[in-house]
Amino acid sequence: MKRSNRLIAITNYFMSNPKQLVQLTYFSEAYSASKSSISEDLDIVDEMFQHEGIGFLDRIAGAAGGVMYVPYYSKEKSTSFIQDLCTQLEDPERILPGGYLYMSDILGNPATMRKVGHIFATAFSDLHIDAIVTVATKGISLANAIASYLNVPVVTVRRDPKVTEGSSVSINYVSGSSRKIQTMVLPRRSLPEGSNVCIVDDFMKAGGTITGMKSLLDEFNANVKAIGVLAEAEDEEDERVVLDYMSLVQITNVNSLKQIIEVHPGTIIRQWE
Amino acid sequence: MKRSNRLIAITNYFMSNPKQLVQLTYFSEAYSASKSSISEDLDIVDEMFQHEGIGFLDRIAGAAGGVMYVPYYSKEKSTSFIQDLCTQLEDPERILPGGYLYMSDILGNPATMRKVGHIFATAFSDLHIDAIVTVATKGISLANAIASYLNVPVVTVRRDPKVTEGSSVSINYVSGSSRKIQTMVLPRRSLPEGSNVCIVDDFMKAGGTITGMKSLLDEFNANVKAIGVLAEAEDEEDERVVLDYMSLVQITNVNSLKQIIEVHPGTIIRQWE
Repeated sequence: MKRSNRLIAITNYFMSNPKQLVQLTYFSEAYSASKSSISEDLDIVDEMFQHEGIGFLDRIAGAAGGVMYVPYYSKEKSTSFIQDLCTQLEDPERILPGGYLYMSDILGNPATMRKVGHIFATAFSDLHIDAIVTVATKGISLANAIASYLNVPVVTVRRDPKVTEGSSVSINYVSGSSRKIQTMVLPRRSLPEGSNVCIVDDFMKAGGTITGMKSLLDEFNANVKAIGVLAEAEDEEDERVVLDYMSLVQITNVNSLKQIIEVHPGTIIRQWE
Repeated sequence: MKRSNRLIAITNYFMSNPKQLVQLTYFSEAYSASKSSISEDLDIVDEMFQHEGIGFLDRIAGAAGGVMYVPYYSKEKSTSFIQDLCTQLEDPERILPGGYLYMSDILGNPATMRKVGHIFATAFSDLHIDAIVTVATKGISLANAIASYLNVPVVTVRRDPKVTEGSSVSINYVSGSSRKIQTMVLPRRSLPEGSNVCIVDDFMKAGGTITGMKSLLDEFNANVKAIGVLAEAEDEEDERVVLDYMSLVQITNVNSLKQIIEVHPGTIIRQWE
């Protein structure tokens, strides 16, 4: 196989297997090439991944070593994408009765979610996390998008227990904005004890749901390494109960009377500064 | 930029933008290369994508033409993956009280779901679909995985209306196995009238949920082009109400007493025959 063909195959391999250590012998056997040729291939792939702003190859020396694709979305690509997303969200057509914002189309758009996942994966990359934890229903697409770049499982907290998930742990918590008592459930076997996790959700206002998830994760002795939300909205009473989080965008104003929405880049932007 | 570098960039482009027509001038401008050089690049990429069993490039001639990556997971790769999945599912540890099978780990595994999505996208590739429709909660990961290869939105049917989704259409239907009356809701703006859709879900027994979704989609004048489920289980009373579907695997026997599960490749395998 010629170098040009190998480079395509290797690029496909890394993009389909991010954050997964592979030995050079895997490639040299698969494509009948010497280790030194493969090593040169990897230099070219690494250079181009960085040039394209999608990440880099991490090479670990030694017997147990190998090479791994680390997805890293460049500051330039991320800021331009987040700016576009703000503009999309500022469309007055999104205003729903009650001052809510329609976002389901964004969560259901695979091209958009791929970029969102890539950006959060960049932020979570060095945290050695074992799982992405989210809550049904709307957080699931976001969680899947991030997990696919980090090569870790998605664990879904539910509002109601399901017979198809076996024995579960449940907690009651107080919703931040509505002050209602709600329930959350996580199946016992869905998360090993003592896991390092990131909590993600599509939307955060006061942060009651995320606080509830933290309490539930305490029951699994999980370490919450980071919290990520697609959009945060300012709570009128400014009683936010979660302070350490990353958001992609901040919705600062929704005025249904004047049909004006203001959306700004969120706190995740700080990671490149 | 040298050919070797261009090939990596072009492979990244196609893998990140499946089923999306791009003009040759996009590449020739982005990488300062002649159209004939790019055309040769595309031949090499096409050849290697086919060699790796991940799809091919579709080239459309003429002024409005261009090139598109069509994900197509080869028969060989698909059958070997499905066989592995059957073995995974036959693990007696998965048996839950009531004869149910624990599958959430599979739905939450991004590497597994990537392949599942690739296989279903192959089956749905020529159907000109506009959206993947699923039902909360467990179908969402499957829907996302397929949609990311087909470059179409995911539309999520819910059991309960949500204030953040605006005006909705709801229907009542009779659940196939439990014979209970249930409700399904789809926000008005989530699906344009007359769309071509595929319905997907993680699990099908009698098929009541899918029949309910079909009735709901009738209200949107949608054309259901295909139905796909990750796993189907034989209904004891053999009263299946959905007959035209594709399944990745068939669970033919769950014996909690003897701790035996039998799982076989599903009907999707026929597409390559």
